Order: sequence, then structure tokens, then C-alpha cells
Amino acid sequence: MKQNKKLWGGRFTEPTSGITEKISASIHYDARLYGQDIRGSIAHAKMLKKAGILSATELESIISGLGQIQKEIEAGSFRFDASLEDIHMNIEACLTERIGEAGKKLHTARSRNDQIALDLRLYLKDESKEIQIKLKELTLLLVNIAEDNLDIVMPGYTHMQIAQPVRFSQHILVYAQQLLRDLTRLENASLACGSMPLGAGALAGVNYLTDREFLSNELGFSDITHNSMDTVSDRDFILDFLYFASVLGMHFSRLCEELILWSTSEFEFIRLSDKVTTGSSIMPQKRNPDVAELVRGKTGRLYGNLLSLLTMLKGIPLTYNRDLQEDKEPLFDSVDTVRMAIEGIHEMLSSMKINKEKMLSSVFRNFSTAVDLADYLVKKGVPFRESHEIIGSIVQYCEKNNADFFKLSIDILKDFSKHFSDDAIEKLDPTSSPERKESSGSTSKSEIIKQIEHIKSSLDKCHSKN
Amino acid sequence: MKQNKKLWGGRFTEPTSGITEKISASIHYDARLYGQDIRGSIAHAKMLKKAGILSATELESIISGLGQIQKEIEAGSFRFDASLEDIHMNIEACLTERIGEAGKKLHTARSRNDQIALDLRLYLKDESKEIQIKLKELTLLLVNIAEDNLDIVMPGYTHMQIAQPVRFSQHILVYAQQLLRDLTRLENASLACGSMPLGAGALAGVNYLTDREFLSNELGFSDITHNSMDTVSDRDFILDFLYFASVLGMHFSRLCEELILWSTSEFEFIRLSDKVTTGSSIMPQKRNPDVAELVRGKTGRLYGNLLSLLTMLKGIPLTYNRDLQEDKEPLFDSVDTVRMAIEGIHEMLSSMKINKEKMLSSVFRNFSTAVDLADYLVKKGVPFRESHEIIGSIVQYCEKNNADFFKLSIDILKDFSKHFSDDAIEKLDPTSSPERKESSGSTSKSEIIKQIEHIKSSLDKCHSKN
Amino acid sequence: MKQNKKLWGGRFTEPTSGITEKISASIHYDARLYGQDIRGSIAHAKMLKKAGILSATELESIISGLGQIQKEIEAGSFRFDASLEDIHMNIEACLTERIGEAGKKLHTARSRNDQIALDLRLYLKDESKEIQIKLKELTLLLVNIAEDNLDIVMPGYTHMQIAQPVRFSQHILVYAQQLLRDLTRLENASLACGSMPLGAGALAGVNYLTDREFLSNELGFSDITHNSMDTVSDRDFILDFLYFASVLGMHFSRLCEELILWSTSEFEFIRLSDKVTTGSSIMPQKRNPDVAELVRGKTGRLYGNLLSLLTMLKGIPLTYNRDLQEDKEPLFDSVDTVRMAIEGIHEMLSSMKINKEKMLSSVFRNFSTAVDLADYLVKKGVPFRESHEIIGSIVQYCEKNNADFFKLSIDILKDFSKHFSDDAIEKLDPTSSPERKESSGSTSKSEIIKQIEHIKSSLDKCHSKN
Amino acid sequence: MKQNKKLWGGRFTEPTSGITEKISASIHYDARLYGQDIRGSIAHAKMLKKAGILSATELESIISGLGQIQKEIEAGSFRFDASLEDIHMNIEACLTERIGEAGKKLHTARSRNDQIALDLRLYLKDESKEIQIKLKELTLLLVNIAEDNLDIVMPGYTHMQIAQPVRFSQHILVYAQQLLRDLTRLENASLACGSMPLGAGALAGVNYLTDREFLSNELGFSDITHNSMDTVSDRDFILDFLYFASVLGMHFSRLCEELILWSTSEFEFIRLSDKVTTGSSIMPQKRNPDVAELVRGKTGRLYGNLLSLLTMLKGIPLTYNRDLQEDKEPLFDSVDTVRMAIEGIHEMLSSMKINKEKMLSSVFRNFSTAVDLADYLVKKGVPFRESHEIIGSIVQYCEKNNADFFKLSIDILKDFSKHFSDDAIEKLDPTSSPERKESSGSTSKSEIIKQIEHIKSSLDKCHSKN
Repeated sequence: MKQNKKLWGGRFTEPTSGITEKISASIHYDARLYGQDIRGSIAHAKMLKKAGILSATELESIISGLGQIQKEIEAGSFRFDASLEDIHMNIEACLTERIGEAGKKLHTARSRNDQIALDLRLYLKDESKEIQIKLKELTLLLVNIAEDNLDIVMPGYTHMQIAQPVRFSQHILVYAQQLLRDLTRLENASLACGSMPLGAGALAGVNYLTDREFLSNELGFSDITHNSMDTVSDRDFILDFLYFASVLGMHFSRLCEELILWSTSEFEFIRLSDKVTTGSSIMPQKRNPDVAELVRGKTGRLYGNLLSLLTMLKGIPLTYNRDLQEDKEPLFDSVDTVRMAIEGIHEMLSSMKINKEKMLSSVFRNFSTAVDLADYLVKKGVPFRESHEIIGSIVQYCEKNNADFFKLSIDILKDFSKHFSDDAIEKLDPTSSPERKESSGSTSKSEIIKQIEHIKSSLDKCHSKN
Repeated sequence: MKQNKKLWGGRFTEPTSGITEKISASIHYDARLYGQDIRGSIAHAKMLKKAGILSATELESIISGLGQIQKEIEAGSFRFDASLEDIHMNIEACLTERIGEAGKKLHTARSRNDQIALDLRLYLKDESKEIQIKLKELTLLLVNIAEDNLDIVMPGYTHMQIAQPVRFSQHILVYAQQLLRDLTRLENASLACGSMPLGAGALAGVNYLTDREFLSNELGFSDITHNSMDTVSDRDFILDFLYFASVLGMHFSRLCEELILWSTSEFEFIRLSDKVTTGSSIMPQKRNPDVAELVRGKTGRLYGNLLSLLTMLKGIPLTYNRDLQEDKEPLFDSVDTVRMAIEGIHEMLSSMKINKEKMLSSVFRNFSTAVDLADYLVKKGVPFRESHEIIGSIVQYCEKNNADFFKLSIDILKDFSKHFSDDAIEKLDPTSSPERKESSGSTSKSEIIKQIEHIKSSLDKCHSKN
Repeated sequence: MKQNKKLWGGRFTEPTSGITEKISASIHYDARLYGQDIRGSIAHAKMLKKAGILSATELESIISGLGQIQKEIEAGSFRFDASLEDIHMNIEACLTERIGEAGKKLHTARSRNDQIALDLRLYLKDESKEIQIKLKELTLLLVNIAEDNLDIVMPGYTHMQIAQPVRFSQHILVYAQQLLRDLTRLENASLACGSMPLGAGALAGVNYLTDREFLSNELGFSDITHNSMDTVSDRDFILDFLYFASVLGMHFSRLCEELILWSTSEFEFIRLSDKVTTGSSIMPQKRNPDVAELVRGKTGRLYGNLLSLLTMLKGIPLTYNRDLQEDKEPLFDSVDTVRMAIEGIHEMLSSMKINKEKMLSSVFRNFSTAVDLADYLVKKGVPFRESHEIIGSIVQYCEKNNADFFKLSIDILKDFSKHFSDDAIEKLDPTSSPERKESSGSTSKSEIIKQIEHIKSSLDKCHSKN
Repeated sequence: MKQNKKLWGGRFTEPTSGITEKISASIHYDARLYGQDIRGSIAHAKMLKKAGILSATELESIISGLGQIQKEIEAGSFRFDASLEDIHMNIEACLTERIGEAGKKLHTARSRNDQIALDLRLYLKDESKEIQIKLKELTLLLVNIAEDNLDIVMPGYTHMQIAQPVRFSQHILVYAQQLLRDLTRLENASLACGSMPLGAGALAGVNYLTDREFLSNELGFSDITHNSMDTVSDRDFILDFLYFASVLGMHFSRLCEELILWSTSEFEFIRLSDKVTTGSSIMPQKRNPDVAELVRGKTGRLYGNLLSLLTMLKGIPLTYNRDLQEDKEPLFDSVDTVRMAIEGIHEMLSSMKINKEKMLSSVFRNFSTAVDLADYLVKKGVPFRESHEIIGSIVQYCEKNNADFFKLSIDILKDFSKHFSDDAIEKLDPTSSPERKESSGSTSKSEIIKQIEHIKSSLDKCHSKN
């Protein structure tokens, strides 16, 4: 009898229909929570023993039974049964079949509602730790690249127009700065799953003196949740992760956009390695930056996953509703995507060749030192707005007369303002422009070195807090 | 040698790295396009034969080789190779291995860029046809329910407050009307993939006199695409489907919300069957409307999938970019979700019990015939705004004096307006209120019957046009 | 007395609080519907006259009163009152104040629920017509640019890597093809508001024999809505417009991305005019493509508006809920954005200068004719996959030996395959490559000319159908 | 001459076109930043004075000029000029016109890129502080309601089905718990704008020894930004706020859904006050929970705003791009919406009447104490899964025999299990059920009181840290 399998079937007279089983089943994706589920069950069993609900023998048989199941799952020999709906029921049913009575007691003082809340929090804590490590490594890689290439001067862009000369290191460190913020968001997300949910029962708490502090310690939480109804209806901690992943994806999309741009024949600032490019089925010459494109494209699914959960949660009343089951697939997909994207970017950055000559030659374009010249006049006492206008006229002159701005003579400059002296000429040189920046956080070498130290020490301070 | 497998590897010196393979691979999800891919390849081969590029023997061996592969895939015995990236390369590599030379010729005048554009269009045309059938069946089910329950009067709600008595049929037909519009959107989406893309090559067209009209006829398209570069960069037809699915999901979320509401102890308007409800792991008495909740929750992923693709496409230059590979998973997920949701709703509606007594008794609440009384006065010559105010005072009187509005005496009514005569009393009766509606499209029985005829004839006219 | 103003205040004992007024008020944005509201009211009044509810004199005074109000609104002299909540109540209250009794009768057989449904549909029909015209003009501009520049050869890109030479016209016509599809989506959206809603009342229809067919004709609709409850709860027609706008925005973001790219010092394919570029507050030399950037950025709000409405509609039960008021601001914003974006792009395209020399010289890059050479071998009998490998080796040879692919001698080619004869050399020439494309829809001149004819005739067929 | 007004117009030969002005203009919405802009300019001027770039007199005239402008803006007498694009240029141009030379010097060592970054951060810091206060007040209101109604027992729901009796306070405190998390997210968002951006210049830092630490202290920041290019391209801090607002909106949508549900004739758990309900234009009896509906509906725009910015930022290269201007409208809209929603909810909650009789009577439904009975058996030694099945049979028995579960006799219970003794009967009573919960965080009175203390102390610790 099919329906006998359901652990909740006591009062039902008709079996669930095929579509109900299909639409309800989550085992094909929540099976990945087996480790957390078993860890949670063992802690719960220990607590039940402590509360006198399980005997020492029963506890032992539960622990060894669960251990055996875990081994089988990891070996691929465990047989999941879709009609048992989810990972919790699959494990519990199998345990009971094997160890009998004791298995039937395991669900005492526990509901699937608080059980799944626990599994998800444990899962996210585990994943966050690993992602944190990978992100820190990636940040360090960026820092290393910046450190190794301090002398490369390249065009800095605003509006994709060459604006001012900058150091390549400053540009690459932008991405390190973004990752530092991402690490903070990850930490916030991780703190959001820092409270232990078990003991909330279905919604109201349980009719047993469960030792939730014991469970919390046993499972490595720093606190317990404080409202049973909130505990089973809250998915904020998943949202926080999906949001972290979305912003990370946005940052990555900007980085990838630039890697793609820089790999074009027109820019040629870098050459991505064969390892991360692919060819064309039809054009034998192509070296396509597929990894960068795919990571850029995956931003879509990261945003989509966030929106998916936000939409699902909109307007549903308290407490647990089955809609909440829809939280897992977007979460798992974002976790997998984030891991792949980090790895892909790491691989691209660590194997790319930087074309410093091309970067440097590009700086001699689009009047990149115009603002240096303007500031020269300011320092001679010309109000900035006037100085801005004077340089504007010089630019216009160059365009009309096809003159090379970077090679203008002092005589010509003097035609535009009497405040120009011989030392103005050196302001035209884009290669020395970054060193003219005097403000902290600027693109001068000393400031970049300070910045690198700052990032490194921030990374040192960033440890997993969950 | 790993990289030898790549059909594009000619000029590459280093193998692609593990993460590149992992992030690039699509075979785990695009394998489901095997049927369309083979259908497209057979048509392409026929065209190549017609163009003199393949001999009759070669064509024959390609067709039989592909047929064999299809059988193996369907039997589950075909071995997919993830390092061959996608379904196209898996099939082509296997074919070449088996039939040699002729297999190597199959990719003549074709690129993966137009090949995937073809496969996706064929896939969507196939799926749209089936979804159209299911949706029409669901619409018909709603119509039948409406037809079978014409005499049930229930409260009509605005702002979730009882507003006026309506027929249950009118309420249920709202969902049929929504589905009619969804069918139109599905048809539009389906028309959007009505042009045959093959022959666009990688982006510029091909160096062969391919007979694209032949391909179009062979594959059941009504037109060919008109710009090769557009052909390989366009994914509008997928967006159109994802949008259709999002609006359908929104409609379903409203219907499910009501099924859930109506199943509460407070409303009790319906009882969902055991087949579509599930129990609780801890509370033995629960009968939860899980299917309705899950369908409501799945709205999130339908929106998420649409957003995912919109985001991916934002700001990418022409023509094909690898980001586009990210189009398939959201599409497949929305197709699967739509099919499951239709089936789930069909099952719920076809097995639910309608509690007509509860509906009827609920109509005697919240002054549901107030507007009937107001209109009575209007017909006696009172301007509507004045009449509205008079009835407002009667309502206030009932609330203050705890009087039953539906049993007010004519004497009391006359205290509020001299225009009330004895025939005003019958306007208080909510059971006859729907029949008082005289406008077309209203909730009177004759209008509902007309509406049902209209829906049926619309469904008859709605045939697949792709 | 503040609350006396409310036209629905009859039974209320306490005034609404400040925040309620603030959060409920829509007059600051729905005032723009005044024209549609007045048009609808005049039609409704004519119908009431026809039904004997209004006298000829009353009708006349209503029409002239409303006409007067319209004039005042257009002259800016009408005083809107936020406590009257919305445009409907503002107009009705003013009318009643001025013409008395007849004004109070105007709301007979009408509810705000069907009134707003009418206003929104009329508004969208009006706007769609104008947007259709602007979009057709823009499509024609693209066609004209393509026609005027048929001889420009430029690099065609996949993965942002130079792939094959194409005609600039083919590239620019991609955007015309997109707009043709956008026009279809706009037409679908416009058809979606083709049914006349008035007469649905609050939800159930009205207690009067209203002549809805008369109203439909009077207001230029092609049909009436068929279910009163659906009529007041349906906002699909707004979604359809927001979806059209989102896809249009996506297309524009791709076009703008390219205009921005092409304006860089690195590409220099075009020069945007001073009219659509702006300067920097600090860098005197900058010419920034702000209009292109802003249009690209506005894609965000177009997506956001679609999502906003989809979210709002998720899970709300029938029929009208006040949440629906949130439909207007995203709609108005998307209408305004679409109009501005079209105008901005029109201005950029019509004033840009095309740098054909730079485009042409860029074609001599990245082995752009590799596929032509591969196909040469195929035509000599080499299977495509072998030919692909041979050309791959030639590319590798050039890279290693720093040889210019486009100037390879026949002797060197022969080293790679015995199938090369003297006529192979001409296949290396990128300028003649587009003409080698023989497939329909390709980048050859004759095919482009055919395409242009096809687009023009499509535009001719595209007339407003609402 | 129109274009003379542009402060960047030096090298331009053609005036910007009308659409460029229209699409570029932001003054109609960024005018609201005037306070922050002036505050920032005064700090900048002080720094320039410190650096010897401005004289004491110049500083004084700038400060008094700006003070005058601020007064005029606040008085509504300042004339904004759309052709001056934004708030920065409007203020600077006016200042220069009034005080001459010194005004022209104010933009020294500053770009609009770092200026707007500053203004936005100051704005968000200001708003966050006020929103934090309002949110804390709302949380306290919830706590007070919980405290004042500790003795109300109501049905607790899962799947919208009555599950177990809970205290009303526990239910209402869920929303307090959510707000505590929202306060954390707000604080994180606020910390994200804690670094002072001025001095980044256009992108590379400035050619002056600006004292950024001085500026940071002067403007109340805790740190300075560390990478000039990051500083002008980063909008994470806005995303963080929009995300906070989205989750808050999601929480509010759930609360409002319940207020709407509880206000129905079917539930009648509460009565919202006249102050926050509105009537119908046509149905005189209606009392609609418009405020709750509007807040629920506004979730859409909050999600839309988040998505809008995420979309805009996707894939744009470094550093500043004009797309970024699109950050302001969604931000302002979310700020306004959050403020209105908080106020609306505060008003609803503080004026609602709780119908404790109706809540209590509803608890005697749907076998709400089934789990209490099951746990009774467990404590007698029956394994939980068996006990679950026994109670399932009792439920089935009641349904078949139309027996009142809450009044079952001990004899009948004994028919189902020999473990039932006389003391089982009291477990049937739903009113005492909440007190049976022994776990911490449960719905028993003592646990709720602990929870209230915990929330209060959390609120006390929550101070603005920016």
C-alpha cells in the first residue's frame, strides 16, 4: 500500500495522487542536506537521552544507525524513495526500519518545521565558511596582481572614455575593495543563521522540557531563536545569502565585462589563457572568453534566485506554509553558482597575461592629462572654473588643428593663458600623472601600497564568526 | 589527450582547465534537446544532399546513424561525455565516430550558433503545443464547474470584504477568462518562434547556397529569419514564453490563494480531496492544502526565470555571446513548472467538494445588498450620491442598534427616506440579488450562460498556429 | 469638516487619519488621466440619457461642465484637492458643486472599480498609438542608415571577438529587426486593452440595463469584457505593456552598449554629436555619451516596473483590492521612459558620424576570413571538420611566426593542404567576404537590400489596431 | 546663449539637444539632496581653506552664500534651472553668480563624481537614523500590544489550517522579531555608507593634498574610502538600503495580509479603526482595510527598486558611468515608501480592536490539541510515530461520527489505546495548551515574558552607529 509509507498518513482515507507526489517531492534536491540532517538528528537524540526520553542503548543504536546511513549515502548505495517526499522522512523511515522502536521515538519533540529550519541553517553556515575562504583567496590574488604590477600605467575611464592616467593596480584593487564589502555581506548573512531553531516544534514550542541551549552548543550555534512561531516561518537568513550572492554576481559581471573588453582586438590590454577560452565550431581562429561571458551571464540567475524567494514570501500569512519549500532550489543554485564563479574568475586572473605596453601607449590619448594642466593653472591662482574653460579651449584647438596635445609647446600654451610657465610642459606627460595625485586613496604608488596593506590587514581580521 | 575531443581545438596549445569545462558544460541540461537536435540535423543533411554537398549514401548513413543515436538516448544507453560540452557536440562526435567521413561533413554550412537557435525554437514549438492542450482542458474544466453549479450564490468580495452576492459560477469563470488571455499570450510566444534560423551560420550567413525555404518547410516553420546577425543573438522568443509563464503563475497564485482561503475552518467554502492534501509529521489531525501552496509558491521561480533572462540579456553587444547559454535552464524550469502547476490545479479543482450551504449562509453578512437598496432609491428618482448617503445611515443604524439588515421592516426604511415603498423589502434578499444585475457580463444566470458559450467558442477557435 | 468631502463617508464616524490620506492619495499621479476620465464620463452620461436615467438637459449640463473642467485642467487653473483622493472624485466633486443634482447622478450604474479600469485602458490605447508611431519612425531611421551605408564593411563580432567581416548595414538592421518584434509586442499589449470594461460596477455588474455595446462604440473599443468580476480585478493589459517596455529596454541597452563601445578611443567606429554628449565638471576634454548611458541604465527601471506589478498581483484574491492602485506609477514611468528613450536614440542615431575607414581597417584583424578559407577547402571535397583543423593550424602558424594572415602566399597555404590552388588567395580578402555569403538573410548586399524591402513592407502593414 | 550655462561646456561647439537635456536632467528629483550638498560644500570649503586654496574671506563668503541658498530653498523661493542639470550645478552656479571668484574656486579638488557619492551617503545616513527611530517605535508598539494581551489564546496556523492553540502575544511578537532583524539590516546598510568619499576626484584622486581625515571628521564619518576609482563607481551602500527595504516590505506584506484576513467577516479577529479604513464609491456599507492593502501592494515597488538598481549596475565597466544617475529615484522612492509604510502600520496597530472572544472560540476547532494528546501517550511510553497514528485514528473517528473532539470521554479514548488514563481528558482543553509548552521560546506565558524582556533589551542596545 503506497500511502502506508507516509509518516503522517494516520487519518487519511485516500492516497495522494501522482501529481501531488510529484509537486511535493523534494528529495531530488534536498538530499544534499543529508549531512546536516543527520548531524541535527544526532544532537536531537542526545538531547532526548538527556531528557530521559531515550535510553542510552536507544541513543547508541540511533547514532550508529544514522552513521551507517550517512556512509551509504556518501557511497551512493542508499536508496532514496521519492514517495517519502524529503530527506528527513527518507532517513527517519530507513532508520526505523533498521533499528525499530528507537527510530520511532526520534521525532519526539520535533517537527519537520523546525527540523528543516535547522538543516538549512547548518547548511548555510557550512557553505558560508567555505565560500569565505575562497573569496579571501580571490581577494588576495587581486592584491598580489596589484602588488606585482605597481608600475603599469593605463588609461582610467569614466563613461568608457579615457579620463586620466591611473595605475593598473588601482584599477584591479577596485575589485578587491568590492570583495571586502562582499565578505562583510557574507558575514552578515552568516550571522543571520546563528540562532538554533530546534525546539520550536511545528509552531508553538514543544510539550517537553527540551534543552535548547544544549542543542545550540552541540551544533555550534551562538544563540537560540526566541519565538517558536517566528522560527518556523522565517527565511530571512536565506534571503541574506541570496542578496550577498546577487551583489557578488553584479561585481563579477563588471569585472568580467572588463576582462572581455580588454581581450578584444581593439583594447588588447590582456590575453586570457587557453585554459579559460574556447574555440568556435565553425571559425578556426576564434579564442573566445567563454568563462568571463558565462560568469557575466550567471548574474541573471543570481538575481533571479533572490527575486524568486522574495516573491514567494510576499504576502503569505504566518506561520509555516508549504510555499516555503521553494526556498531550497534557489539557495542551492546560488551556492553552486557562487562557487563556480569564484573559481572561474580565480582561474582567469591567475593565468592572464598583462599587455603593459598596450596599456601604456593607450594613455597617450584623449587628452588624458587635461585635468593636470587645469590644476597647474589653479595652483597659479586661476579659479578652477576659469582654468577648466581655458583647457577646454586648448583641447578644441588641438582637435581643429590636429595637434598632439601631449607634445604641445610652451609657446602655444602661453597663447591660452599667461599663467603658463616652462614647468607646465611636464604636466602633459601621462606617465607621471598618477604620481601627481596627492590625496589619500589616490592612484599614486605610495597610496596604493598603503591601500594594499589595509586590504591585507582587513583580510586577516576577517574570520568566520558562525 | 583530453583536449583532442574538442571539435574546435585546432589552434589551441593548452587544454581547457577543469573549471572551464565545469562552467561551460551544458550537457546535463541541454541533453533534453536531443530530439530537436536530431530532427534539425536530418533536415540539414537533406538540404546538404540537395545542394550537392552530401551524396545519397552519405545522407542515408547520417539519417540512420542519427536514428540509432536517438534510440539509444531514449533507451538510456547513450553515453554522454561532459567534455564534449553540449548535446550538439555529443551527437556529432558520436556520429562521426560511427559513420566516419559523412559525419565530418554534417557541420558544413552550419554553426552551433544557428543550430542552437533552431533547437530551442523547435523545442518551444513542441512544448507550446502540449501546454496549449493542457490549458484548454483546464479552462474547460472551469467552465464545466461553472455550468454544473449555476445556482450557487456566494459572497462576492472586494478588499476581502463581502461586497455583493454573486454566483459561484461567475467567480470561477474569472479564472477561465484569465486562462483565455494566457492562451493568447502563449500563442504570441509560439508565433515568436515561427521563423526558421538555420543558415545564419555563426553570424554572417554561410558561403553556400543553402535552401533555407526547404529547411523551413521540412521543419514545419512558417517563415525564415531575415537577418543572420539577429538570428544568432535573438532570444526574444524565449522571453515571450517566460513572460507567458509568469503571468500564468500570477493567475494561479490568485486562484491558489483562494483555494487555501476557502479551505480554512473560517471560510469552509470547499473541501479539497485527500488526493491533494497532505498531513503533518507531528500534528495528526492536519489536512494541509500543500498542492495549492506549492503552486502559489512556484510563482516565485516563474518570475525569477523571466528576470534571470532579462538580466542576462541586458547590455550585451551583438551578436552571439556565451552568456546566451544561460537561456536554457530558466526556460526548461519554467516549462516544467507550468506543466506541473496546470496538472496540480486540474487535480485540485476536479476533486474538490463545494460547500454550497456555507457559501449561501455567508451571503447574509456585511449588508451585502446595500447597493441594491441604493439603486432602488435611484430608480425612484433619488440622485445616486444622495441615495448612497441614505443607505450609509441605515447601515450605521443597524450597527448601533444591532439590527439585522436583511430583516429590516419597511417602517424603519421609511424613516430614512420617503421614497421607500413596500417593494423595497425584497431588495434586501441576497439570494435574488445576482438576478437583479441587468448589465451584460454580470452575475445573472442568463449572462453567465452567455459567457460560458462565449468561452467555449473561443476555445474552439484556439488552435495551435505554429 | 474634513471628512464630509469623502463621497463614500456616509456610515463612517471617525475621520481618516493623516497617514491614511497620504498613503491613499493618488491624485498627484493619476491626475494625468483627466482626459480619459472625462471622455469616459461623457460616454457614460450619454448612455445614462439613452437609458432614461438622465434627461437631455442633465446630459447637456454634464457635458458642458466636464468640458469646462477639462479646459481648466489643461490651463493649469483647476484646483486639485488631495483629500478627494483621486482624479475621479476630484472631477465628480467639482462637477457636482457646479451643476448640482445632475452631477450626483453621474455615478449611477458605475463604480470607481470599473471607472479606473476604463481610464487605464483608454490611456494605454492612446499612448500605444503614439509610441507605435515613434517606434516606426525609429525603425525607418535604422533602415535609412542601412540603406545609405551599404558599402561599409566592418568586423562582425561573436563573444566580442572579431569573427567575420559583415556589412555595417547588416549590423544596424539587427536593431530594426528587434524593433519589428517590439512593434508586435506593442500591438499585442494594445489588443489586450481592446475590451470595454464599464458596466462591471463594483464587481457584479449593475442593477441597470446599461448599454455596454453603445459605450464600447462610443469609446472606440472593439469588444466588451465578458465577466464583471474579472473586469475589476484584471491588470494583464498593463503587464503586457510593461513587458513590451522591458524587452524594448533590453534591446536599447544592447544598442546603447554598442554606441558607447564604438565611441571609445579604442574602437572609434562612430562619433556621437555634441548634441547628445556632455562634458565633465572637472575634465575639460571629456565628451561623454551620456544619452546612451542613461538609456542603457533606464533598462533597470523598466524591468523594475514590470517586476513591481507582478509582485503586487501575486497571491491577491479576487476581486478588486486596493493593492491594485499601485499599478499606475510603474505604468506611467514606463510610458515616459519608453518615450524618452526612443527620442534619445533617434537623436543619437540621426546625428552620429560613421567612421568607415576605421571600420574597414579593423576587418584586417583576427583572421576574419578564416572560415572563408575553410569553406574553400570544403568545396574542394575536404570534410568540414578536417578543413576546420587545417585552418586552425594555419592560424597557429601565423601567431607563432608573426605572419600576416591576410597576406599569406599560396605556397605557404599549400604546405597545409594540397587542396589549395591559386584561387584560394582571394578568399583571404575580408572586403569581399560579405559577398561570398550565399544564404538568404546573409550579409551580402543583395540579401540586405531584400531585407530592407521586407522591413519596409512590414512597417507599412503595421497600423494601430486598437 | 543656452549652452553657456553648462559649467563643462568649454570645448563644445554645438548645444545639447532638447532630449539630451530632458533625459539628463535630475534636478526635479535630486533637489532633495540640497541639504547634504551644502553641508558637503561647506566642509570642502573649510578643507580648501586649511589647504591654503581659499582665503578666510573666501571661505566666509562661501559659507554665508551657501547658507543663504539653503534658506531660499527651504522657503521655496530658490529658482532651480533644469538646464543646469542637477542640484550641484544649480547651487554652484548660483553661488558663483552671487559671490563671484570664490565660487569658481569651490570645485577645486572635487568632481561631481565624488560630490554625488558624498551627498548620497550623507542622505542615507540621515534617513537611516530617522527610520531606525520609527522602526524601534513600531517594534515597541508590537511589544506593548503583546504585553497588554498576554492572556488571549487564539488558533496558531500552519498552512492556514488551525494547528495548535497559541497566545496572541506570541503571534504578534513574530513581527517584533522580524523588525529586530530588519533593524540589523538597516544598521548594516548604514555602516556601508560609513566611509567618506570626497577626495576621490573624478576617479584618480586629486592633484592636491586634501585633508580627507578632516573632511571625514567634519562630516561625521568613521572612516575614509580607500580607493578613488572604487569610490566613484560603488553603489553597494544604496543596494544595501534597497535590500533592507525589500525585506522589510516582505515582512509588512505578511503582517498586512493577516490584518486583512483578520478583518474579514469570516475571521473577525480584529476590527480596524475608521481612521485607517475607507468606504466604497458605490457600496455604502463597506469598510475596506485600504491602508493594509496599500502597504501590502507597495512591496512590489520596494522589490522593483532593488531590482532596478541591480539591473542598472549589471555589466557596466569601471569607473563612473552616467547610468549611475539612475540610482537616485529608486532610492528616494524606497525611503518614502518605507516611511509611509511604517507610519501606516503604526496607525493600524495602535488603533485596532482585538476581538478576544472570537479568537478564543476559534481555538475549539480542527482538533487543535491533537498533538497534546499524542505527547500524552509518548510520555506514557508510546513511541512518537505510534502515538501519531493512534491520534490520527481518533480524529478519523470524530469526523465519521460527527463527534466533538474536545468533549471526547475517557472511555472512548481508552478504546484507542490502553495508555490513556483519566488525566488525558485535560489535554483536550485548548485554553490550557499554550502552558503545556515547556521549551524555551515557546508560547507559554513565562517564555513570552522572557522574550519580551529580550526584545526590549535588544532595542535598548540598538543605537545608530553611523
